[in-house]
Amino acid sequence: MPDNRTVRLIARPIGEPKAADFKIATEPLPPLNDGQVLIRNSYLSLDPAMRGWMNEGKSYIEPVRLGDVMRAGGVGEVVESRNPKFQVGDFVSGMAGVQTYCVSDGPGWTKVDPNLAPLTTYLNVLGMPGMTAYFGLLEVGQPKAGETVVVSGAVGAVGATVGQIAKIMGCRVVGIAGGAEKCRIAVEELGFDACIDYKNEDVRVGLKRDCPDGIDVYIDNVGGEILDIVLTRIRMKARIVICGAISQYNNTAPIKGPSNYLSLLVNRARMEGIVVFDWAPRYKEAAIAMGAWLREGRLKSKEHVEEGIDRFPEVLMKLFRGENFGKLVLKVG
Amino acid sequence: MPDNRTVRLIARPIGEPKAADFKIATEPLPPLNDGQVLIRNSYLSLDPAMRGWMNEGKSYIEPVRLGDVMRAGGVGEVVESRNPKFQVGDFVSGMAGVQTYCVSDGPGWTKVDPNLAPLTTYLNVLGMPGMTAYFGLLEVGQPKAGETVVVSGAVGAVGATVGQIAKIMGCRVVGIAGGAEKCRIAVEELGFDACIDYKNEDVRVGLKRDCPDGIDVYIDNVGGEILDIVLTRIRMKARIVICGAISQYNNTAPIKGPSNYLSLLVNRARMEGIVVFDWAPRYKEAAIAMGAWLREGRLKSKEHVEEGIDRFPEVLMKLFRGENFGKLVLKVG
Repeated sequence: MPDNRTVRLIARPIGEPKAADFKIATEPLPPLNDGQVLIRNSYLSLDPAMRGWMNEGKSYIEPVRLGDVMRAGGVGEVVESRNPKFQVGDFVSGMAGVQTYCVSDGPGWTKVDPNLAPLTTYLNVLGMPGMTAYFGLLEVGQPKAGETVVVSGAVGAVGATVGQIAKIMGCRVVGIAGGAEKCRIAVEELGFDACIDYKNEDVRVGLKRDCPDGIDVYIDNVGGEILDIVLTRIRMKARIVICGAISQYNNTAPIKGPSNYLSLLVNRARMEGIVVFDWAPRYKEAAIAMGAWLREGRLKSKEHVEEGIDRFPEVLMKLFRGENFGKLVLKVG
Repeated sequence: MPDNRTVRLIARPIGEPKAADFKIATEPLPPLNDGQVLIRNSYLSLDPAMRGWMNEGKSYIEPVRLGDVMRAGGVGEVVESRNPKFQVGDFVSGMAGVQTYCVSDGPGWTKVDPNLAPLTTYLNVLGMPGMTAYFGLLEVGQPKAGETVVVSGAVGAVGATVGQIAKIMGCRVVGIAGGAEKCRIAVEELGFDACIDYKNEDVRVGLKRDCPDGIDVYIDNVGGEILDIVLTRIRMKARIVICGAISQYNNTAPIKGPSNYLSLLVNRARMEGIVVFDWAPRYKEAAIAMGAWLREGRLKSKEHVEEGIDRFPEVLMKLFRGENFGKLVLKVG
């Protein structure tokens, strides 16, 4: 058996995760038992949700236990198999963990086809962020053609796909992102109608200009001040979909609640949360639809690849600093 | 024509409305034109929403203009008519204004039958609060038999009816109210399963005790800290209906947003606002249903009557101080 390089969570971060919250080591791998497979991880998915998994306490998923390998989705190749469902050479996607190899009994792993799409696409448009975007926008947000859809984190994994699907649905799409380059990508590469650079302009002014008739659907990935501003510009019967709140995840102070939530009353609007796992029975339907759009060139899967498993703590911080252009993935290398 | 005693809004209140924000005077009434009716107001509806109507700025209804008679719903008797749709002696309900007489062209006024229910019932269960409770609970909250419904302002106009309808629907009903006497009324008179006295106990502890399995539907009339605590106890797929936020209406500081709103994400829950006017096309259906429950004794319309139009400013403050037991109405006298 090869050695395994692992990144274990050894302390619950206070505020931003730090290198000292993890232990990086080389460990021997045990021989496989019957029914197990050995997967060599190729790419790991780095997600804002990881920050929540590091905290103690009740959430939609168990926290990572101290001492455990940090939880992460990933894609990899089966290099040894004692499970008849998987053959050596299969490419698979599942909960890989932040490590170079993963030993699994199989459940939760699905085969992916590297000839249909690059491996990283299975962590992006054809993975959890894509599913979140698809069901969050279409099922919770329920956009109609001609409506105005606003999405924050517009060049992030969920936001980029939300905006592109909303365009396919015939909506006007306005992104919110940090920095001129991200806004350029949103408009020029991803086809958004406009993108507001929250780092360099007043979001209030931008929304007034780019959504003159107000906002019908808002897909929120960031929370905080931007959510509060959007609430002042929603239309009657607007739908706000809470996918995340990356601006708040490293807070040591209490989370900033949306002061303008009574706009929901005035506008008979609704705010609803989504957790992608609920939609698992329909992932296949979404993958078929998005797969077709990918092939037709109507949907792009944009990834930001960094390399080196030992760099996990620092690369993860790129998410919270907004330094990723597209879905952040870590090439195990 | 008789003289008219009027209460006009002459200043936009800052914080709590004060006597000086109103001008109370006796004015002559003009003779009726063709098509007009003269209504002698019997009872006026005093509602938390009035506070919002006094503010400048966009909302679900135009603000009361400075110098205008303060807006109020009411019931009264037609004492003179030049409109073929209304006869002298008819009892009617409509936007009466805070005054002893109202001259109207008729639109917005509907006849009520004092033999079917006391006049004040038409400002409560059979009026706007009842309609808000009916549609807010049943259409937005969508409670199912066996679910746990929590309502704040439990002995207020909306809350009392919400709780009773939820009981009729087979739900477990827990109120939140201020003071032992209100909690006694909720349980003993209105049939709630339990009521938490937020003035004398920790709402967190009360909710844990009275909603051991969590909360499926929360009808919020108060906002603020209580909304935030409820968010920590909601169940998966919970529905939070925002009817009002009386704790925040006199704020001079920014409104306190719900810090725990990410519980909507974790629990795939939704928060939605209601404005009763949207449901006008279905008021009749609600009145028939609630009228039957009233006759059967399954629903009580509990009003708190104060008397004297000149007392409007001070009586209104009873709402914000939580000094009303049931729907607050002002007998014009």
